[in-house]
Amino acid sequence: MSKKEKLKIIPLGGLGEVGKNMTAYEYGGDILIVDAGIMFPENDMLGVDYIIPDFEYLLDKANRVRGLVITHGHEDHIGAVRHVLEQIPVPVFATPLTLGLIEVKLARNGYTDKADLRRIQANEKIQIGKFTVETFHVSHSIPDAVGLAITTGAGLIIHMSDFKLDHTPVDGWPTDYARLAEFSQRGVDLLLSDSTNSERPGWTPSERIIGPAFDQVMAAAPGRVIVATFASLISRIQQVSDAAVKNRRKLAFAGTSMVENAKIARKLGYLIVPDETLVSIEQALHMPDEKVVIMCTGSQGEPSSIIGRLSTGSNRQFDVKRGDTVVLSSHPIPGNEEAVSRAINRLLRQGANVIYDSIAPIHVSGHASQEEQKLLINLVKPKHFLPIHGELRQLKRHAWLAEQVGIPTENIVVVENGQIVELGGGKLTLGDRIPGDYVFVHGESIGDIDHDVMKEREQLARNGIVVIDLSIDKIKGRLLHEPEVITRGFLSPEDAERLIPEMRKRVMKVVNSGGLDSEKDIASAVKSYLYDQTKRKPMVFVTMSRA
Amino acid sequence: MSKKEKLKIIPLGGLGEVGKNMTAYEYGGDILIVDAGIMFPENDMLGVDYIIPDFEYLLDKANRVRGLVITHGHEDHIGAVRHVLEQIPVPVFATPLTLGLIEVKLARNGYTDKADLRRIQANEKIQIGKFTVETFHVSHSIPDAVGLAITTGAGLIIHMSDFKLDHTPVDGWPTDYARLAEFSQRGVDLLLSDSTNSERPGWTPSERIIGPAFDQVMAAAPGRVIVATFASLISRIQQVSDAAVKNRRKLAFAGTSMVENAKIARKLGYLIVPDETLVSIEQALHMPDEKVVIMCTGSQGEPSSIIGRLSTGSNRQFDVKRGDTVVLSSHPIPGNEEAVSRAINRLLRQGANVIYDSIAPIHVSGHASQEEQKLLINLVKPKHFLPIHGELRQLKRHAWLAEQVGIPTENIVVVENGQIVELGGGKLTLGDRIPGDYVFVHGESIGDIDHDVMKEREQLARNGIVVIDLSIDKIKGRLLHEPEVITRGFLSPEDAERLIPEMRKRVMKVVNSGGLDSEKDIASAVKSYLYDQTKRKPMVFVTMSRA
Repeated sequence: MSKKEKLKIIPLGGLGEVGKNMTAYEYGGDILIVDAGIMFPENDMLGVDYIIPDFEYLLDKANRVRGLVITHGHEDHIGAVRHVLEQIPVPVFATPLTLGLIEVKLARNGYTDKADLRRIQANEKIQIGKFTVETFHVSHSIPDAVGLAITTGAGLIIHMSDFKLDHTPVDGWPTDYARLAEFSQRGVDLLLSDSTNSERPGWTPSERIIGPAFDQVMAAAPGRVIVATFASLISRIQQVSDAAVKNRRKLAFAGTSMVENAKIARKLGYLIVPDETLVSIEQALHMPDEKVVIMCTGSQGEPSSIIGRLSTGSNRQFDVKRGDTVVLSSHPIPGNEEAVSRAINRLLRQGANVIYDSIAPIHVSGHASQEEQKLLINLVKPKHFLPIHGELRQLKRHAWLAEQVGIPTENIVVVENGQIVELGGGKLTLGDRIPGDYVFVHGESIGDIDHDVMKEREQLARNGIVVIDLSIDKIKGRLLHEPEVITRGFLSPEDAERLIPEMRKRVMKVVNSGGLDSEKDIASAVKSYLYDQTKRKPMVFVTMSRA
Repeated sequence: MSKKEKLKIIPLGGLGEVGKNMTAYEYGGDILIVDAGIMFPENDMLGVDYIIPDFEYLLDKANRVRGLVITHGHEDHIGAVRHVLEQIPVPVFATPLTLGLIEVKLARNGYTDKADLRRIQANEKIQIGKFTVETFHVSHSIPDAVGLAITTGAGLIIHMSDFKLDHTPVDGWPTDYARLAEFSQRGVDLLLSDSTNSERPGWTPSERIIGPAFDQVMAAAPGRVIVATFASLISRIQQVSDAAVKNRRKLAFAGTSMVENAKIARKLGYLIVPDETLVSIEQALHMPDEKVVIMCTGSQGEPSSIIGRLSTGSNRQFDVKRGDTVVLSSHPIPGNEEAVSRAINRLLRQGANVIYDSIAPIHVSGHASQEEQKLLINLVKPKHFLPIHGELRQLKRHAWLAEQVGIPTENIVVVENGQIVELGGGKLTLGDRIPGDYVFVHGESIGDIDHDVMKEREQLARNGIVVIDLSIDKIKGRLLHEPEVITRGFLSPEDAERLIPEMRKRVMKVVNSGGLDSEKDIASAVKSYLYDQTKRKPMVFVTMSRA
């Protein structure tokens, strides 16, 4: 038997969910990238807009990257396409809706012309460098999602990105079991599969079950119905539109991303909203309340979203009012629970009726639960298994499920981002570890805030700052005037009034006595005085000029 | 009919859960306080240690406060006793275990001697000023919890603090249905009841169901079992101890609060751990791993807790190691999900097996779910209903449940903290709104950080700071030397190297040209330059000395 080359599987993206936002494959000198999405910052990532995967590993190999395949049109899979293309100009392959959503995003950044976008369909076979990629349809909370069968000399692998086994999906197009069975017959060497819900027993309910709940909400609502969800949850938009039609209400979209996504999805035929149902938000605001449904973003309570602004009374176009029914059609992403709760409480306080997932079935997950995950493994019968799309806790749980259905423990590998896995010679083994971390995006520039900067921000935030400016007579070594003191985030004005004069006196005394003369020494004297008085440790900066 | 005086019900405590941490009653000039607990800060309350209710309303009425009754020994009901007593010295009434836990807390702050602590029992009737208070047992996740029946000229009210209707509680002492029925026969004018789980359908499982799960974990664990829970969850400690005995493991407590609480609960007979089972943590660390159970705090992933430190490898006494089984016996409190997930991932990364509530039944709630809440209302048959212990969303839901079981809508009042409710003349009405907010505790002093300080902290944290120090020649108006620049939390060192020299040049240019000469003008010029370059807005401080 000849020595075969190995396939490298490279999950990129820092501490985030493994392989979710970006995975690269390397074989015979060629590289294929699957997905390029963004992550949202956690609560203690202060001031970060969003996070992109660290793909530095690929930069010096850019000329060997043959293509970028996108599995579906959600932010966490398409949001970083622009950032990748800026450094690695490469053809992007995606199904029509996914490509449409990518185009919308690129256009917003003035990037469309430069991108080489290639439309593919589910059930297509394309050659990308040394990779034979076969697409197959999967159901998810957005239409036109695909899984990938990737064949190289190292074998056949199935890359199962976000999916659920919804037998009655809103678009009538279930996951392609026949193709999965066909791959299974061919013999699958490795299955990579979505672990998002691996801690959830049972079977994820069909997206269709929420239709009746929306029907009921719209029938019972005395006034406007305002539905919040993600702008890319096209299936959810379809359900709300269907319920609006049934209840003879008009539907308006509020907010740029919702308007743009709905427009492209309608144009491509993935979202069916009758012309006579659709109105502009301006029109909707002049219609009788009981005839109106408004869809917008903000189901995660984000302060800058429409729901966030409605909850604080700071939305530009319209306000929430008594009689409105607000539906938060999503489940809080871990870390967002407080923000969502605050938004709910504020909307209730304004007299709106608020409906959220713990009081009515107006949301279902887009990801497979344990029974679906096990069925997939049994259907595909892979020799090896690599759980992806989850934190370590979900991956370990998914690995445990795979063991339950008979994958031998030694054929399962659990890794985190940055750990290369190699398939070859009938074995799945660990390869190199590559450096990689989060890349924080804040403002214009990318990656110029690192963990140290983040740590400084946390220190600033925990205790505030004190700035002391001293002018010292060069010859006599005495202060020319009283020290100026600025504080932020440290004390309330009343306490400052009590504490600062005394602090100023002490600084004058130590400086004038010639006891301390470096900025550092003065700062540490101030620090210990303030700690004594308040048991807190603000950052202290001393600036000193000698004249 | 003579004009009767009204009873005022005063829920205190800022935007927190209504009446959870402190409720005051006022009747005929006398005041009774129920509970005095703390809240834990939310994610964006930067640098706050904990929060106490704002009881300023009571301060100028301190001489009319007749007593403080505590319903049970959890932090959110006893944590602020010291803060209240410091300003309102008043007798504290509580059952033996609750009083024991209060004593432990007061002792830690050197306060025991000054407190007038009075032991009461469930099923006791005491007169506190004009309030006749009858206690009755309720089951909760800590033994010796009580509800209160409070009789005044305005009628009989039932104050149902934290409770569940557990038919097989660990201490064998269920909620006292007979007393509730008796009050019902007397005629209850108002029921106040715990809304924590009003969004949860069904019936909360008995604390006892988790016993077998702990048994199984300990039987299967190849090495040490480390169980994390709240230090005041005495019932949970009992379950773990029982399982340790069954599995012939020794039990050690780690951490001051856990050690102290277990000690007082054992002493008072509320926690039964055989002497031969209990070992010190030092002893446990020298025993064979498979013979050991360690209980500690940190089930919420708090970085400074033992679990938090174990997860980052920074615990002093011992480390987590391959073969350990760590059980997080709690459910993440909203806002703590990220911290808990991080702790789980880190412990897994260190090779421990981690068991948490979504993979094994090692936690149940201590609060009644919807069916229990409805049963309570039907049992008590109150004329009026006031949901407490919840945010607005939970209160509204609890009110809806009360309507379902037949309480007329007009007899239900939903309020938030600071809104006085009045009972009298057969009616429940809204009274005055009193000012009140969170009182943040950070370091030594209380209440000297307010929302403005918090806002400044957030600004500091979002974008960092830039401090620029200028020395200017008094006569020529020119800079004496290059401006000194300090940044924190703004740029990485590499980017600072690029940006700062250019910024310095620009400042020198504008100052030397005499164009800008106030600190404010220079700061705003710097701000706009930095925004131009980075699209970020750090706080900029300019200090200037003229010599």
